[in-house]
Amino acid sequence: MGFAHAAHALYPSYKGIFFMRYELYYWPTIQGRGEFVRLALEEAGADYVDVARRGGKGGKAGLRAMKRLLEGRRVARPAYAPPFLKAGKLIIGQTANILFYLGGRLGLAPRDEAGALWLHQLQLTIADLVTHIHDTHHPISGWLFYEEQRPAAKLRTRDFWRYRAPKFLGYFERIIETSGGPYVLGRRLSYVDLSLFQIVEGLRYAFPNRMKRFEKKVPRLVALTERVAKRPRIAAYLASKRRIPFSQWGIYRYFKQLDA
Amino acid sequence: MGFAHAAHALYPSYKGIFFMRYELYYWPTIQGRGEFVRLALEEAGADYVDVARRGGKGGKAGLRAMKRLLEGRRVARPAYAPPFLKAGKLIIGQTANILFYLGGRLGLAPRDEAGALWLHQLQLTIADLVTHIHDTHHPISGWLFYEEQRPAAKLRTRDFWRYRAPKFLGYFERIIETSGGPYVLGRRLSYVDLSLFQIVEGLRYAFPNRMKRFEKKVPRLVALTERVAKRPRIAAYLASKRRIPFSQWGIYRYFKQLDA
Repeated sequence: MGFAHAAHALYPSYKGIFFMRYELYYWPTIQGRGEFVRLALEEAGADYVDVARRGGKGGKAGLRAMKRLLEGRRVARPAYAPPFLKAGKLIIGQTANILFYLGGRLGLAPRDEAGALWLHQLQLTIADLVTHIHDTHHPISGWLFYEEQRPAAKLRTRDFWRYRAPKFLGYFERIIETSGGPYVLGRRLSYVDLSLFQIVEGLRYAFPNRMKRFEKKVPRLVALTERVAKRPRIAAYLASKRRIPFSQWGIYRYFKQLDA
Repeated sequence: MGFAHAAHALYPSYKGIFFMRYELYYWPTIQGRGEFVRLALEEAGADYVDVARRGGKGGKAGLRAMKRLLEGRRVARPAYAPPFLKAGKLIIGQTANILFYLGGRLGLAPRDEAGALWLHQLQLTIADLVTHIHDTHHPISGWLFYEEQRPAAKLRTRDFWRYRAPKFLGYFERIIETSGGPYVLGRRLSYVDLSLFQIVEGLRYAFPNRMKRFEKKVPRLVALTERVAKRPRIAAYLASKRRIPFSQWGIYRYFKQLDA
């Protein structure tokens, strides 16, 4: 399996060779789906700007720039929603698509077509899981408060823990087992491992009681999570101000009634 | 934009050059997510087998083969769920990932990286829309009947038509406008156009009244749908027994109460 061994891809330019500076566009106050991209950029030590989070006056300018790229009539290939990545002239939307683009370039994915597609397939399965997790607390509408859809949220959460969580997380447990571990591809870390770390950490935030019981069923996934957390660049990132804390505005939200 | 001009990719083999026979694995009685792949294979005139639908005794054998590839312990890269495609030794899961793989090979996608990623990004946005459409009638659980989640379904449907449908379908309307039309990439058909045809046709089945009113807002999308329906291979497919009818078991389901 051919991995890129450099943390950055090299690009020719009229000035010679330079490292690409990536621009990530995402909501500045939540982890959300942007966090899957942030984790990959951080692990690779990539040169990137989290545009909408630039401090002071720059913060607002960043949000304006994001809006312009989403809605501007002269943008030929606008993303439907954040996150999106600007890489030179390219604008790439959809979290899994961004990671697919970055994967080989950051040394976080196989370079061969079959390997890259397989990893992408796993990331798309994570994307489905993320939607299910979000919908536990907002099954009806993102335009209503949790309190306005609580009965439906309770039922959806029961469904999630009865069927969805065991099937999705059991699937990844099996993949790690088949690969020989500790990661989904075996010994080499990939962006999917970083995303699985984020899934487990998020579920721990939103469902501390349920996860305490559930984790016994997926020991390899738990071991992967701990291993990712200890990687030097990830550990430094998690301890930094760049890591936005979990909150009641993201994908994972804690409600006592849902964590029975 | 470099398109493949042959309907099939050519593969070397020990016998010389041959056309790849694709094996599609999907539930045999519904259109579902598999239909997005079927439409691409049909438009390209590709050589494929819809494995689980093979007639007579073969039908059951096809379903068994599907189960084996999903659950078999010796499958190194199992899909999480159907549909998945077998192309030689490769097994590719996740609808959008399958189309990404097939796109260039079937002449239904640009060959350059930026163009292929852009098209894939649009397909991933369609995948999000499909989940929203499905959840209008099943917002709580796929393991409960519609009648058991009707109040939530009514609220979710209201949200869908107030916010989701205008934003998603308006986005694709804008993309067609920006490209110059009649298709999302301009004059060349892509697999995303086939999927948008399926979205519009499905919404017409599930929400005939609502769609009648709504279609005025997305004239380019409606024109694209009619144009796709008239393409010779698509028209032949739609008139054939290979096209499974819409039904109350798929993504799109008709309930009078939801189509106010």
